[in-house]
Amino acid sequence: MHEFADAAAQVMARCETLGTLTQDPSCLDRRYLTEQHKMANQLTSGWMIEAGMTTWQDAAGNIWGRYLSTVPNAPRLILGSHLDTVPNGGKYDGMLGVVAAISLVALFNGERKHFPYHIDIVGFCDEEGTRFGTTLLGSRALTGKWQDSWRRLKDNQGVSLEQAMADFGLSFDDINSATISATDVLAYLELHIEQGPVLEQENLPVGVVSAIAGAKRFNITVKGMAGHAGTVPMSMRHDALCASAEMLLAVESISQQRAGVVATVGKIENAPNGVNVISGRTLFSLDIRSEDDNLRDAVLAEILQKFDDIATLRNVTLEIEQTHSAPAVHCDGALQNALIAGVEASGIPTKVLASGAGHDAMAMADICPVAMLFTRCKGGISHHPAESITTDDVAASLSVLHHTISTLHHD
Amino acid sequence: MHEFADAAAQVMARCETLGTLTQDPSCLDRRYLTEQHKMANQLTSGWMIEAGMTTWQDAAGNIWGRYLSTVPNAPRLILGSHLDTVPNGGKYDGMLGVVAAISLVALFNGERKHFPYHIDIVGFCDEEGTRFGTTLLGSRALTGKWQDSWRRLKDNQGVSLEQAMADFGLSFDDINSATISATDVLAYLELHIEQGPVLEQENLPVGVVSAIAGAKRFNITVKGMAGHAGTVPMSMRHDALCASAEMLLAVESISQQRAGVVATVGKIENAPNGVNVISGRTLFSLDIRSEDDNLRDAVLAEILQKFDDIATLRNVTLEIEQTHSAPAVHCDGALQNALIAGVEASGIPTKVLASGAGHDAMAMADICPVAMLFTRCKGGISHHPAESITTDDVAASLSVLHHTISTLHHD
Repeated sequence: MHEFADAAAQVMARCETLGTLTQDPSCLDRRYLTEQHKMANQLTSGWMIEAGMTTWQDAAGNIWGRYLSTVPNAPRLILGSHLDTVPNGGKYDGMLGVVAAISLVALFNGERKHFPYHIDIVGFCDEEGTRFGTTLLGSRALTGKWQDSWRRLKDNQGVSLEQAMADFGLSFDDINSATISATDVLAYLELHIEQGPVLEQENLPVGVVSAIAGAKRFNITVKGMAGHAGTVPMSMRHDALCASAEMLLAVESISQQRAGVVATVGKIENAPNGVNVISGRTLFSLDIRSEDDNLRDAVLAEILQKFDDIATLRNVTLEIEQTHSAPAVHCDGALQNALIAGVEASGIPTKVLASGAGHDAMAMADICPVAMLFTRCKGGISHHPAESITTDDVAASLSVLHHTISTLHHD
Repeated sequence: MHEFADAAAQVMARCETLGTLTQDPSCLDRRYLTEQHKMANQLTSGWMIEAGMTTWQDAAGNIWGRYLSTVPNAPRLILGSHLDTVPNGGKYDGMLGVVAAISLVALFNGERKHFPYHIDIVGFCDEEGTRFGTTLLGSRALTGKWQDSWRRLKDNQGVSLEQAMADFGLSFDDINSATISATDVLAYLELHIEQGPVLEQENLPVGVVSAIAGAKRFNITVKGMAGHAGTVPMSMRHDALCASAEMLLAVESISQQRAGVVATVGKIENAPNGVNVISGRTLFSLDIRSEDDNLRDAVLAEILQKFDDIATLRNVTLEIEQTHSAPAVHCDGALQNALIAGVEASGIPTKVLASGAGHDAMAMADICPVAMLFTRCKGGISHHPAESITTDDVAASLSVLHHTISTLHHD
């Protein structure tokens, strides 16, 4: 990996630099269509030019660079990730995939290596969805999935998406010009931090992603009977919080028994929520994910059946509202194999793992084969200033991508 | 019970009338030292005078009436309850015990029946503690338990107790003149709605209270490790909310197994409380009550041991803060027997039950023997506009008290 040490150091330094562009001086917070978005695009564009690329900004505000193919009418291999962050975010989630791709192209350029495809790098303008509450705005502009109603999406200052685009120098009405033609695209390949603890636990610098998990989300409302904590005997209670606690433990135990599924109750709201009042109504969320939609739905059915059983036994009522549903996105088999070959060529044991988090690759899968490589991150922590990766792991990531891209063929 | 039908109808009508005196036109809300407090005292005072009593207001704002004994230097039998309500409260919690006592005295007066003790009726000005966050202000003024620091207690408008008393025409510095001498007091006898479902379930109009449960309260904080709901495998989680759910069910199951104890987790607050985030920190309350302090503490120890076991197994940390402790107050045996005799004389099956809720009798127990009679309330509901009792049950309550007081002797 020694040959990638300098490039890895450059990647780390550039992530630090991007980490200084924040709309909130107390933490890293860089949202869509802000002054800091513009500065991040300009900085990234400069690095792309240094790497031998031509650059442009599209109608959504994504920044692009192209490392030209030697072949006329060549297809595009798109590398990239996103440049926006969550509030109080980390320096690597998103940015790593953009700046590592640039350093990689700089290496190819230094080697005077060209390919039968353009290498396009995209720095997506919005993946997190923090400003307007809708995720993947950047990549969904490429795939033509914007909806006209989104022009009225508002940020927490009341500024509409349409107005914010105008203020930035873009036009909502031009958004379709950001759409790219599926027939031109060879593949989309994204490097991203794992955002989980698996690679760290297995002591591996990188892992190849098999799929991005599909997720379903629900709001579960349990209604029991509120009452005085002192006067209602235990045997006469219909405690909504106790019923919810039993459901919550059912979610945990059922999903623990089934490999390949994670299910989480992350949110709970209880009423009246008084120290001396038996709970009358409890609402909790359920988030369930798997790279196998059938497995996920089977486990979900088991959980919901258990909820019903608990509600019946405890004589409480149950309302279940689905709030989100997205199928799993499977990474392309040939691209996965190419990444695995790159991992092996780099002398790293192969680990294939699913992504539990969403990524720009989910949107891109609408128009082209996608693949992802994960870089180990400390403690599995992301979306937090403590987000941390090592230069050595970046070098390993660059090595894998260098091998993979060098051996990719356009068929 | 037919002989008490008219008096019971009067009690019901007066509760309706008191229920119209509210500081909030949308619901019943009558707090300490308000204009409505003053009007309730005037109304009650008028009814006392009609019943043949002399009346006065003490330095705390409690309203008093005396039905004179024929014996010189007679002791006082105090009947009463409170005239304040919680916000959005019911018409009977507190008021029943005051107006029923007045109608009872009116009956005695009609019968020209006098006793070797004065019958004093007190309408306490503050039991709920809603305005200043400190309960039992009225009864604790009688027992000399006010603290000088309370002058600075503030309501939610920032008005201090001292100022509110001055605005009402009272003086905080005169509060000690409300204190009554323990040697004068034969007993305190309080009629109150049950605020629980036991009498309704047993199809009984009234019950004799054995004790007012002692309570301990705690805030429990569980700290685990927050994480991404999609990326952290089930086996690697330290989910604070799951740990809390297991503790909550332990509270329920341990207290279900031990008759005479109720334990409640009424309040829960979870962080970060996001749909897609594994919980890092959960706080919940524990309220545990019994008429037997030793039993309560034994069950509590079992619960806390179980909390420790759960925290250890799940590798989460536990912080336990005690926020409240009050010992059980036992009703006087002789007075209980007198009430039981009254129940039997009224042809009602005897039910003796503990009070899980606090009452003015708790404070009064500091200076005299206390006893309480409970009237059945619909669904066990209190502190709510749906609070409901029947005229027949009020007649039964009057019958029991009439027999009891007629046969009480001063020894």
